[in-house]
Amino acid sequence: MLTFNDILQARERLHGVAHRTPVLTSRQFNEQAGCEVFFKAENLQRVGAFKFRGAYNKLASLSETERQRGVLAFSSGNHAQAVALSAKLFGIPAVIVMPEDAPQIKVAATRAYGAEVIFYDRYTQSREETGERLCQERGLVLVPPFDDYAIMAGQGTSALELLEDVPELDSLLVPTSGSGLLAGCAVAARHLRPNIRIFGVEPEAGNDTWLSFREGRRVEIPVPKTIADGLQVSAPGQLTFPIIRALVEDILLVSDGEMIETIRFMLERMKILVEPSGAIAAAAVRQRKRDFSGQRVGVIVSGGNVDLAKLAAYLQQS
Amino acid sequence: MLTFNDILQARERLHGVAHRTPVLTSRQFNEQAGCEVFFKAENLQRVGAFKFRGAYNKLASLSETERQRGVLAFSSGNHAQAVALSAKLFGIPAVIVMPEDAPQIKVAATRAYGAEVIFYDRYTQSREETGERLCQERGLVLVPPFDDYAIMAGQGTSALELLEDVPELDSLLVPTSGSGLLAGCAVAARHLRPNIRIFGVEPEAGNDTWLSFREGRRVEIPVPKTIADGLQVSAPGQLTFPIIRALVEDILLVSDGEMIETIRFMLERMKILVEPSGAIAAAAVRQRKRDFSGQRVGVIVSGGNVDLAKLAAYLQQS
Repeated sequence: MLTFNDILQARERLHGVAHRTPVLTSRQFNEQAGCEVFFKAENLQRVGAFKFRGAYNKLASLSETERQRGVLAFSSGNHAQAVALSAKLFGIPAVIVMPEDAPQIKVAATRAYGAEVIFYDRYTQSREETGERLCQERGLVLVPPFDDYAIMAGQGTSALELLEDVPELDSLLVPTSGSGLLAGCAVAARHLRPNIRIFGVEPEAGNDTWLSFREGRRVEIPVPKTIADGLQVSAPGQLTFPIIRALVEDILLVSDGEMIETIRFMLERMKILVEPSGAIAAAAVRQRKRDFSGQRVGVIVSGGNVDLAKLAAYLQQS
Repeated sequence: MLTFNDILQARERLHGVAHRTPVLTSRQFNEQAGCEVFFKAENLQRVGAFKFRGAYNKLASLSETERQRGVLAFSSGNHAQAVALSAKLFGIPAVIVMPEDAPQIKVAATRAYGAEVIFYDRYTQSREETGERLCQERGLVLVPPFDDYAIMAGQGTSALELLEDVPELDSLLVPTSGSGLLAGCAVAARHLRPNIRIFGVEPEAGNDTWLSFREGRRVEIPVPKTIADGLQVSAPGQLTFPIIRALVEDILLVSDGEMIETIRFMLERMKILVEPSGAIAAAAVRQRKRDFSGQRVGVIVSGGNVDLAKLAAYLQQS
């Protein structure tokens, strides 16, 4: 079970370690969307994404003995850097398992936080087996990306802070993939504001949570092709999904093109850099004007890690 | 005279109208620079630049009768939009005088705030004469871009807020061109923290304040060729310069290339978009490591209005 108290405890642990990210507003966005939007800017979080909140809280929640053994994560994205930085802050070893063809820049960024990167061949090896073997051989603790209550509780602190700053929200939109962020935010928001309507937002191409939500059971899809590389999980989590079903109003879908348009808007008008998954919830508000008309809407801007070459390409599309 | 009280009064007027912009930090920047930097993010201000603070304060400081006559400004940049938006908020007419070859996007943005744009031919007409004629014909009040105490006082509120959030700064770096922002910030900072060292930062190509500071008199240079289009004034102001001489430690120079590198850094690592003049003070810290080693340094990030096509070009340079 994930309780509001877990989120409060996570907040204590993160105090002075994670940034309390600002809540931004844009009158131009509001005019276009026909509602009043409050953007929780997790792209300004450490490592450039909300993932730091969950990873650090997970490490903080381990016993001293467990933690000293070191930690392991599978990821070539924001979770990798979040775990690497958290481990560095605790002064413990971190092993990150990545596919051999992971982008060199991500490998370097993860190593820069002092983590050891171990590669597996994605055609001949399973990353789970590689990881489990390493955990057993070295006694490392696995840090899962989302399906873990300590991870969810840490991630939920972003909605907690947003609602502290802007208590009277009518709706809250949260990017979703494995649904750790969505589950944590839903528990925080529902507790602080019982009548709030909570929405998950997913890429059209990666609609596993949307399908699961409709069928009432966890549906698995092939790894989706979308520019939202933070949202390529193929099924919601075992622990996250029941929370989503209980607390979330609906799952909304957004196309890659709408994400790019929103990235451009947020860069040009709001002067912030967001990654595709960071733009997705804002894109959903623009797209579903009628559903949010006249409301006060919270939007979690989950991260800002975009390769500048990719960004240049997005800017050239119109 | 510009007093600290003028800045306090400006702050009252701006309350609830201007954004209280966040103060951002970046551990990676600190590691590279060898000091602790606090970025006052005026790129997140309304109209995307600190200019709004000065323009709104100027309009608020007029008598009701004066204000109702309407206002006029010469500018095709951030000042134009700042005056246009301020006039819109007061419900009064604004005329903006621009050269005929001003970028269409700037004309459109200014008109979007409800201002009337009047063109002059920069080869056959003087903008001053065009403006004066319009002021006389229509009874409009001229809103100067920097050489005016109400403008300086409004702009100085950014340093006031920064020092409220981070009182113990050793140094403060401020972009400078006509020196309105620098003068306002210097008065605020010196009052709140008498021992602070205040620096203006200018493009290498547009070193009029640097020259003036050294010669002890206002030196005029030809309109400088620099990517910092916010810093192309050819001499410091008559009212601003004596304040600069009295309160500022030194003027630092930064090349266009260093600005571009800093724009890239701030976008990639800090997830914020800054224009060349917005990056210039941060660039000076990176460049002058020894001067700020171990210090707590305040940096005014003055604005974020960059054309996305230009940004794409900056991203492609390395």
